[in-house]
This record gives sequence, C-alpha cells and structure tokens, in this order.
Amino acid sequence: MRPLPASITVRDVTLRDGLQDEQPIDLADKLAVFEALIDAGVRDLELTSFVRPDRVPAMADAGQFAAATHEAAGDAGVVRWGLVLNQRGAQRALDAGIDHLQFVVSISDEHSRRNAGAGVAERLDDLAAVVADADRSQAIVEVTLATAFGCPYQGPVDVGDVTATARTAIDQGVRGIGLADTVGTGVPTEVAALVEQVIDVGAPAGVPVGVHLHDTRGLGVANALAAVDAGATRVDASLGGLGGCPFAPGASGNVSVEDVVHAFEAMDCRTGIDVARLIDAATIATGAVGRALDGHVALAGPRFAPSTVPT
Amino acid sequence: MRPLPASITVRDVTLRDGLQDEQPIDLADKLAVFEALIDAGVRDLELTSFVRPDRVPAMADAGQFAAATHEAAGDAGVVRWGLVLNQRGAQRALDAGIDHLQFVVSISDEHSRRNAGAGVAERLDDLAAVVADADRSQAIVEVTLATAFGCPYQGPVDVGDVTATARTAIDQGVRGIGLADTVGTGVPTEVAALVEQVIDVGAPAGVPVGVHLHDTRGLGVANALAAVDAGATRVDASLGGLGGCPFAPGASGNVSVEDVVHAFEAMDCRTGIDVARLIDAATIATGAVGRALDGHVALAGPRFAPSTVPT
Repeated sequence: MRPLPASITVRDVTLRDGLQDEQPIDLADKLAVFEALIDAGVRDLELTSFVRPDRVPAMADAGQFAAATHEAAGDAGVVRWGLVLNQRGAQRALDAGIDHLQFVVSISDEHSRRNAGAGVAERLDDLAAVVADADRSQAIVEVTLATAFGCPYQGPVDVGDVTATARTAIDQGVRGIGLADTVGTGVPTEVAALVEQVIDVGAPAGVPVGVHLHDTRGLGVANALAAVDAGATRVDASLGGLGGCPFAPGASGNVSVEDVVHAFEAMDCRTGIDVARLIDAATIATGAVGRALDGHVALAGPRFAPSTVPT
Repeated sequence: MRPLPASITVRDVTLRDGLQDEQPIDLADKLAVFEALIDAGVRDLELTSFVRPDRVPAMADAGQFAAATHEAAGDAGVVRWGLVLNQRGAQRALDAGIDHLQFVVSISDEHSRRNAGAGVAERLDDLAAVVADADRSQAIVEVTLATAFGCPYQGPVDVGDVTATARTAIDQGVRGIGLADTVGTGVPTEVAALVEQVIDVGAPAGVPVGVHLHDTRGLGVANALAAVDAGATRVDASLGGLGGCPFAPGASGNVSVEDVVHAFEAMDCRTGIDVARLIDAATIATGAVGRALDGHVALAGPRFAPSTVPT
C-alpha cells in the first residue's frame, strides 16, 4: 500500500441520506444529532434535501432545519450541504441560508428517471441553471454522480459514461464531484480505477473528487480506503450506517461514519473527528430513529480503548 | 492498487472457529454444512479442533467428525485442517485421519496462558514435539499466530515479536504461517506491513503466509485485501461470520466467507468458490445454529445477480 495522505475529509450524511427513507423525526431530534456531530468534530455534513415533501416526507422541514443551524454552523466553521434536484429546490436551499448545494445526476438513465424524474441529458441542463443560481448567492455546487459504480436497473455502468458526465458537469461550473455507489456494487479495484479517471478529469479544473459509499456487501471501508489511496479527498458516511436510496431497490445503509473515522484514524490519516464522541452521536441517532443501527465500531468500541481491554 | 493475484485460497473456518463457541450442534448438521461447503467449491477448511471437551464442548465430536468426512474429502480433494493445542490433541487428530494440523501460538503471553494454558516459550517447545509427531504421519503443521495484530489483554503487539515467533516456528518445521487478528484490531496498513515482514521470514523456507481475520470493526474485507495485496496466499473466513474466540473478550465473528469470496471474485481474483452456493451453505449453517448470522452478501445477494436487479 502507498502511504495514506495525512488527512481526509469525512462528510457526515446522516441528517440527509441517513434519514431520508425513515419515518420523519422531530426537528429537535435532528438538532440534537447535528450538535452531537459538531461536538465530535464533524465539519462537513449533508444537512438536508430540498425536494418534494410528498416524495421524501422526512425532509419536509428542510428550510426550518437550515435556518435553525445557521448560527451554530457559522460559529463552528461547519459546511452544511443541501441536496437539490432542480432550480426550485436550489432556490429554497439558498433562501434558507444553506452553505453549498449538491445536485444529483445519475449515470444510468433509468435510475435518473426514477430518482429525479428526468433522463441524464435533461438533468445536466438543469445542473447548468442551478450553478448559475448558486453563483449569484456565492454558493458552490457539487455534482453527485449516482449509480457511478453500478445501477440496480442497468447493472454495471460504463466508466466512459462517468468521466463524460463528470466532464460536462465541470464545464457547467461544478466545484466538486461526488461518486456515489448508490446500491453498494463497487469493489476496491473498480473504485480505485474510477476515482483515478475522474480525478484526471477534475484535476485540471481544480475540482476535487469524493466518494459516497454503502456497505451493502461488506466493502464499505475497503472501498473508502481504495478511493483515498487513488486520490479521493473526501468520504461520505453516516452514523450507524443509516440510509439507503428509496428509489434504488437493494440499497442498504451507507458505510458507518464511526467505522470510517475509526479506520482512518487508526491508520494515522487524520479526520479531525473523535470516535468516542461519534459513538455518542450514533447513540443519539439511534434514539431518534427508534431502532438499532448498523456499523461495527459503535458496537465493539474503538480498538485498544480502555473499555474494550479487560483488566 | 497493484493488480491482485490471479487466484487465492479461501479457507472456510465455519466448522471449527465458527462453531467452537456455539451450543454443540449434531454431527449430522455439521456434515450437512461440510457437504454444502464442498458443493460450493471450498477445498480448504478447518474441520474441527482436538481440544478438551470440557473447555470446548462444541468440538467434543472431533474424532467422529473427522472419520465421517474422510472419504468425501478424499474424493473431492478437500484439505481438512484440525486445530490442536498439544501433543495429546495432535495424536487424536492424526489417529482420526485428519489431513493437516494447525497449532496455535499466541504472540501475547497473557492470551497464550488463557487460551492454551501456557506462556509463549512453552508453547513453542510443544510445537516442536507436535511437528515431530505429524512428520511420522506425513501430516504438515501450520502455526496460527494468535493476537498477531493486537491482544485484548496487552493491546498492541510488537511486530518484532511476531516475526521472531514466526522464525522460531519455521525453525521447528511448520509448513505454513497463519496470522490471526483474534479480536479484530488490525487495520489495513498494519496488516499489509506485518504480512510483508512475515513473508520475508517465511519465503526463504518456502513457507506461505495466510491471514485469519475478524470483521469486529468493519475492516474484515479491507484487511483481507491488504493482506493479499501484500502477498498473503490464503484468507480464512466463515459462513455468516460465525465465530469468535471464547477466551478473547470483545471478539466478534470472523469475516464472512460469502463477503470475502464475493469481493475477490468481483475483482477477478479467483477462489474456485461459487457465491450463490456459498449463500446456500450459509442458510444451512443458520438453520443449524438456530439464529441469524452476520455477513453482508448473504443478505443483499451478489452484486448484479439477476435476483438483485429488479425488472
């Protein structure tokens, strides 16, 4: 293995991706999770999505939540991302004072239609309009390329489709690219190869590449490591692995943020996040959703922690 | 990432490590799991351990089980390993017609005393005697170095202790070295570094290095990949992640053999094992132990399998 970088960004996606498919929880509970994440050292997080409340009821309070976190986020230097699917959502997000926007474009046409109601070409046109809107508010837009490592409808996807879509998105002004393993079909060799190719597209424009991974087939941390080894600078993850795409059958949870932070910290690749406090945050999230979560480290404890070493 | 080797050996440890800490199950159930593993293509497996029945009741039928599998194993070209802790166990194993022996030596003195009733130095003396006994039966002995990546009592272990113990074991005639992450404390950078160093010790003597991994902190598959990337030729794993060391608090299950086989096969590193049939074997094991198992692929299905891609 090559030496890992000295640090990476771990973006917590609990409050958006993690909760989007759950029964709606109270704003107070969301705020408690938000505060616990900040206390643990998280400085980059998906806060919510500005989408149709009838389609994703758990995100209906997006504007309120953004407004309620504005001051605390500013004080702590936290970047809050809001997911949007169109200009209308982008305007809501910007009006609510969200810091930056994520715009989702699927690589697979079928997933794109089911997830966002339009094919890939149309989505890329919408992206250009959203970037223009964001520019006027000094917000940046990151494109999240869904099904980048495989699609539940189409199966494997073509690497050329991913790099071409990334190139178009960069031409339209995105400032970051997220490669999403929507249904957990990525494997480390492919993740590394795709990340490298997309970095080749992004680097000349100064656009960094992050990954959004699921642990569906036990490869969440392995894929994160492969991605970072290949040059990805950010890994998305959620408390207790909460999450999954409601419009992608077979998607189980995200890779657990405790597992990801624990792994990278143990390998001397700094995340700025405290694992023990992250486990506290996972406990709060567990209480909020009312069921046991996944993830390994929250259950076993960090390696060599006093509590895991019997006397 | 470097290209993976064209193939690796995945050794199934369900019947020994996986069951050792469970309520004893019937011999007929063990035979059903054994047959299902062979049907799936497994050709290397830990069959049982020849240890004190009062300490590990689930392995009390070791001799019977070895005898009952002798013919089928021979027909299928299956190598059955029996774990032993001393000469008495080795003699029982050899009398029962087991193919090869695993002898456990802990790196940590404290784990050694709790697991095998003696410190490391004494264990290495016992190893020499067992190798001599095995030689007379044309069986080979592999040493399993327990707590090689960390100990529940001592915490981190010194790499020099692992290489020194490996060197002594090789001098005493072992033909294989297994590095065991007994309580799931290994992380990929350390796993790769340790495997490389132990290969440096083993290679001049023609002794291969394998790894025995747990998924305690979500790193099972990542560690397997790091080990193979570093030159390990064999990965141990169990159906549904069954297992854990009864004398190592905090040890959760092994890494799931379905997850390991699925990952390596998806990366074009052949195991000779069919994932779908392995999931069938996991279902049989689930029935035998009477509770749901861990592991990801048995739940989600292999990626891109027709059953996981909605039409």
